[in-house]
Formats: sequence, C-alpha cells, structure tokens
Amino acid sequence: MQRPMASSARSFLKMKASIPTLRGVKAEGGVPVMQLDTVPAPELQHKNQVLLRVLGTAVNRADLLQKRGRYPPPPGASEILGLEAYGQVEASNDESFRPGDHVIALLQGGGYANYVVAESATIIKMVPLPEYYLSFNLDQGKFERKGADAVVACAGIAEAFLTAYQLLKFDVNLGNAAAGETVLIHAGASGVGLAAIQTARELGLKVLVTAGTELKVRACMELGALRGWMYRGRPLEDLVDFCGGSESVDIILDCVGSTYAPIHPRILRKHGRWVLFGTLSGANANLDLSLILRQNIRLVGTTLRSRPLAYRKALIEEWTAFASPRFATSSLMPVVDSMGIFSLSEAERAHAYVESSGNIGKVILRVDV
Amino acid sequence: MQRPMASSARSFLKMKASIPTLRGVKAEGGVPVMQLDTVPAPELQHKNQVLLRVLGTAVNRADLLQKRGRYPPPPGASEILGLEAYGQVEASNDESFRPGDHVIALLQGGGYANYVVAESATIIKMVPLPEYYLSFNLDQGKFERKGADAVVACAGIAEAFLTAYQLLKFDVNLGNAAAGETVLIHAGASGVGLAAIQTARELGLKVLVTAGTELKVRACMELGALRGWMYRGRPLEDLVDFCGGSESVDIILDCVGSTYAPIHPRILRKHGRWVLFGTLSGANANLDLSLILRQNIRLVGTTLRSRPLAYRKALIEEWTAFASPRFATSSLMPVVDSMGIFSLSEAERAHAYVESSGNIGKVILRVDV
Repeated sequence: MQRPMASSARSFLKMKASIPTLRGVKAEGGVPVMQLDTVPAPELQHKNQVLLRVLGTAVNRADLLQKRGRYPPPPGASEILGLEAYGQVEASNDESFRPGDHVIALLQGGGYANYVVAESATIIKMVPLPEYYLSFNLDQGKFERKGADAVVACAGIAEAFLTAYQLLKFDVNLGNAAAGETVLIHAGASGVGLAAIQTARELGLKVLVTAGTELKVRACMELGALRGWMYRGRPLEDLVDFCGGSESVDIILDCVGSTYAPIHPRILRKHGRWVLFGTLSGANANLDLSLILRQNIRLVGTTLRSRPLAYRKALIEEWTAFASPRFATSSLMPVVDSMGIFSLSEAERAHAYVESSGNIGKVILRVDV
Repeated sequence: MQRPMASSARSFLKMKASIPTLRGVKAEGGVPVMQLDTVPAPELQHKNQVLLRVLGTAVNRADLLQKRGRYPPPPGASEILGLEAYGQVEASNDESFRPGDHVIALLQGGGYANYVVAESATIIKMVPLPEYYLSFNLDQGKFERKGADAVVACAGIAEAFLTAYQLLKFDVNLGNAAAGETVLIHAGASGVGLAAIQTARELGLKVLVTAGTELKVRACMELGALRGWMYRGRPLEDLVDFCGGSESVDIILDCVGSTYAPIHPRILRKHGRWVLFGTLSGANANLDLSLILRQNIRLVGTTLRSRPLAYRKALIEEWTAFASPRFATSSLMPVVDSMGIFSLSEAERAHAYVESSGNIGKVILRVDV
C-alpha cells in the first residue's frame, strides 16, 4: 500500500492532502454499504492534540448502529466510523507524545481511516504494549497465544478493556464492584465480554456468563468465569437457578436488553446494580418495579463515547495504572477472534461477521490503505 | 388519659409492665383490622438506646402495606406499626439525651404505641422543635398556620422530611440534586411530596409536580412548585409537554410506579435520575431501554427503613444541619392535613383516609392511650 502523502506531519499539515478512508455510509437499495473514500486530511487544531498514523482499528457493535444512523457521533466528533485505534504518533501538540511513539487511542470517531486527530488525554502509551494476543482455537477448544503482531494485539484493546473497567469499577454510579461480589456478564465471549471477565477476575469478583455456544462458554471459563450459561433453546427461567437462585448476583453487565430484563430484578441481590450498555435483543422491557423498589436495585444506562473529556481522561488514567502492569505480566491479554482479522477495505465483511455473533473476542481491521 | 405504669424509667424497667399498643394485624373475614392490644413493654437493651414516651406518630403508606403483610419489618425491628414518632425521653443509655427531652424519631417500627425503644442515632433533638404547622384550608384554597400544638406539628416530620432529603440530596446514588436542576415530584400533595417540594425549593431546584385535584396543585404551588399537572382525565402523553417537552427533567421522585413508567425515560435529560420509592399504581412497567441507554439514565429503587444504622445516622446528621435552622425560621414547615388528626385508637379510620388519597400533607395519630 502506498501512502498518499508525505510522511512527516509538517508536510502533511501543509499539504492538506486528501487521505483514503471509510466514510460513513452510502445507502444502496436501502442497505448501508461502506466504501473507501477520500476526504480532506484531519489536522491538529488545538493544544493537547495528537495526529496518529492509524495502523489498526477494531469493529464495535456501536459501529453497526452508527452506519444505520442509530448511534450518531457526539457534537464535534468525526463522522468517520471507528471508536479506537492503534498507531504511531505522526505529530503532537502535547509534549508527552513524540512522533514515532506507539500508542492506543480511545476515539469518539475517526478510527476507520489512516490518519486521525485525537485529544492527547485519550491516547495511551502503555509500556510495553503487548505484541501477543489470545486466539481461541475452535478445533482444540482452547486458547492459544499468538504473535508477535502489535497491530492485531493492540488495535482492539481500548474500547473493550476501558469499557469493562468503566462498567465494573471506575464509575461508582455503574457497577462499583467490591472484591468478593458476583457479576453476571452477558455475551461473555464478545470483545467487551472477555475483557470484562479478565478484569472482573483481577478485581476479585466471582464471574458468571451467558453465551450462545458451548465453545464460547468454554472460552469464558478459561479466562476466569466460574460457570457459563448457554442460552440457546433454554427457558429464560432457568437462568435464575443457574445464577444460584433469587438474589444471588450483585452486578449485571447487560448489552442484551429486552430478553433478560424481566428476570434481572429477581437475580439481583439487595443494592444490586444492573448496568445496561447495549440492547442487542431489543429495547422494549417488561419490569417488576416492586423488586427494583424493595431490593434498592439500580438500573443504569451508559455509553462511553458521549462522556465528557474529563471523564474519559480520568478513566484512562485509572485504568492505565490498573491494566498496564497486568498486560506486562500477561495477567490481562487481548483476545482476538481466530477469523477476525480483516483489512480496512474489507470492513463490510468484518461487520457482517460481528453481526453474525460468530466471533470470540475482538474483530480487528488492519489499516493498510 | 392515665398512664398504665410508673412514670420513671427505672420502675418501668423493673415492672416489665404491659402497655397498650396497636399491634400488627388481626385478620377478620380477610380484611386486616388493627386493634388496641397490650404487649410486654419494650426495654433498653444496649448502649446508645433511648426509651421514648410516644406522644404522636403519623400514618405512612408503608404502614398500609405492612398490615397486609407486603412490607415486612427488617430483621430485629419491632413488629408494631409506625415508622416515626414525636415524644419525650423516658430513659436513656446515651448521655446526649436526658429524661424529659422532646425529640422526634425515625423508626424501623414500633411508633404506633405509647412507648418505643430506639437507637439514639435515630433520635433528633431539633432546637427549637416547631409548635406550628401548615394546614390547607379547603374553603379558602390556601394554607394557614396552625398551632401551638407540638404533637401535631412534630409527629409527622421525620419520615417525610428525611425521605425527601435522602431522595433529593443525601444519597449520591439517588437524586443527587444540584442547584438549578429540575425535579418532577409525583403525588406532590402527599406528606413526602410537600416535604420534597419545600426541600427542593431550599436546594435551589425548579419543581414540577403531579397531583389528583386542582386544590392539591394549588397547595403544591403555594409551597414552591412552579407548575402542577392535575392528572385525572388527562392523557399520559400530555405530561411530556407539561414538563417542557422531551429531555426537560433531571430528577423524578416517583412513588407511583407503573402509570408513568413508559414516559419517564422520555422526560429525563441526559444523566437523569429516576428515583422510585413507591408503586402506588402498580409495579408492572413497560420501559424503553434504548432511552435509558442513550441518555445514561439511572432508575433506582429505595426504601429508607431497610438502610443500615450508619446510613440512617449519617442522613439524620446531615439533614439536621440542613433543616434545623430552616425550621427555626419557618423556611421549612410541617404540613398536616386539615382533617388528618386522629387518636391512635382511630388508626383504622386514619388508614382509610390515607388510602382514599384525600389528604394534603401528613395524617397524624395522637398517642393518647
């Protein structure tokens, strides 16, 4: 692949060159289809910004909504898809970052492109950045360590691990987990799910999961889940017993929404926290408010992208202190699906794969355009 | 009225006298009916307890549930009804309280009796205790100041005002109000409602209310509500416009439950708090989780009685600092319904009156048995 611009930030900024990128959505016959496009290059505008040469990004469920117009970017954010990136600093208005630094970034948008401008507070220079990652071998039914490929290892860390830490620990209004508590994680084998299992395990929580196949359950247990509930073909009611009966769970990480909503208030203990961060199964929910009331249960919805910069900055600082030594000792590991590595130009296929829920761990887009 | 025992705590404790009290429920033909009964006297058991000669208590909605077996007292609490009291210290294991002190008490039970033992942390010695109270004159359609009758003025302060302050301000997991925010208070003319309106006004909040009659709306506005929505015969949908459209409210104090649940996520602003402390209209709710998610809304259920002693102690301390000077200057005033003063022996009638929702403010029980 050829770079369409000079490699130094200086000449880049002078050139105002156009760069290839996947830009939003073109509707063809009602179906949103992503296509590579060329748009004006992003530029450093303010102090404390960093221009990144993006080497990899990852697919998030939110991307699938956004391209259908159902998850618009916050005001001021790029309209290009992509909530995270791994790359190299090209130019920096912040003395903490120098050209050439390898970093990961938590973005409000713009990751599906070969260049992105980000606030320096949302750039993370973990040292060392992992070069290895876990990949679930479907034939052997267990994880194996893959590498060294920093792009694949790092491109999907930011959203999954920061979200997991935010939901479980960082924000006292969300999971606010204490060691010894029990957490139920739905979609345990998803990118966020597997990051949350590892994070919860490191926080001293007991972890229960739900997942759509027995292999996914096995993957979750290998990373620290005590038990997994394969939901297909099983009555919802059984989930209560699986969890250990009524009032057995302190925290639920819920990206599913509608399906489990009627049963969550029963599963939760007194002062239980039901943290909603997705509605994969739909948004219409039937709730028994008397349990919410009597058990002092909290249902709280959260999206990371829309949080103010100060919030994301504080999250990143606290998470880096928590996660950096754990990545260095492989107590935390990135998990990438064994068939989940695509080129940015194959983003449409990557989205279809995530949509099918076939993946165990993150689905990566190499930005090699 | 004659006291059935010696007046000193010492002889009382020695005598183990029986005292008349309204005790729990006797089912007659399936209808729970309260009757005066005589039971062994409560005794000081531990350090930091106070024996109160109860002079007045008040009816709370929770009492109506409890006598039907639907709101059982927490472990260790008295099975006698009554969540609050005004009275005189008879004996004390805490040097902060001396026999003869006039106090109000937040109880986990036992208020419907002429003696009650309470943890000293839940006893409040506001100085001066109010002797005056507000009473809504239905003919004139406005409040008038009534007194001096410390029993009527003080017997209904604790539950209403402490709950209001807990929901709005004390507990950061509940309303967590900031000056300038907008709160919607359902059942605005109830005991808690009118305490919450006054408290919210003092906290610098904009107050909207719902109520069942135009007179009740007028009462709410006289105490500081900006507008009131008389709900009878009006389509639920209209409440959105009444509040100022979608995303117009920061906090909802909800003792209603089912009825308004479908509309609350639309009314609430980003990071809105929906605080559920009752389910008067039923508990089955239909929710749009996509709004909960996208708006980062928090739905949280809460009951005060079941909170640990340390929580109630901290609430009482913070509230006393907030409320005591305001009661002294009549910035806060107890509100007692103009027909809402009963004797303890008339508790059955008092309950029926509260059940009819006819009251504006608290319904008081004089403990003159």
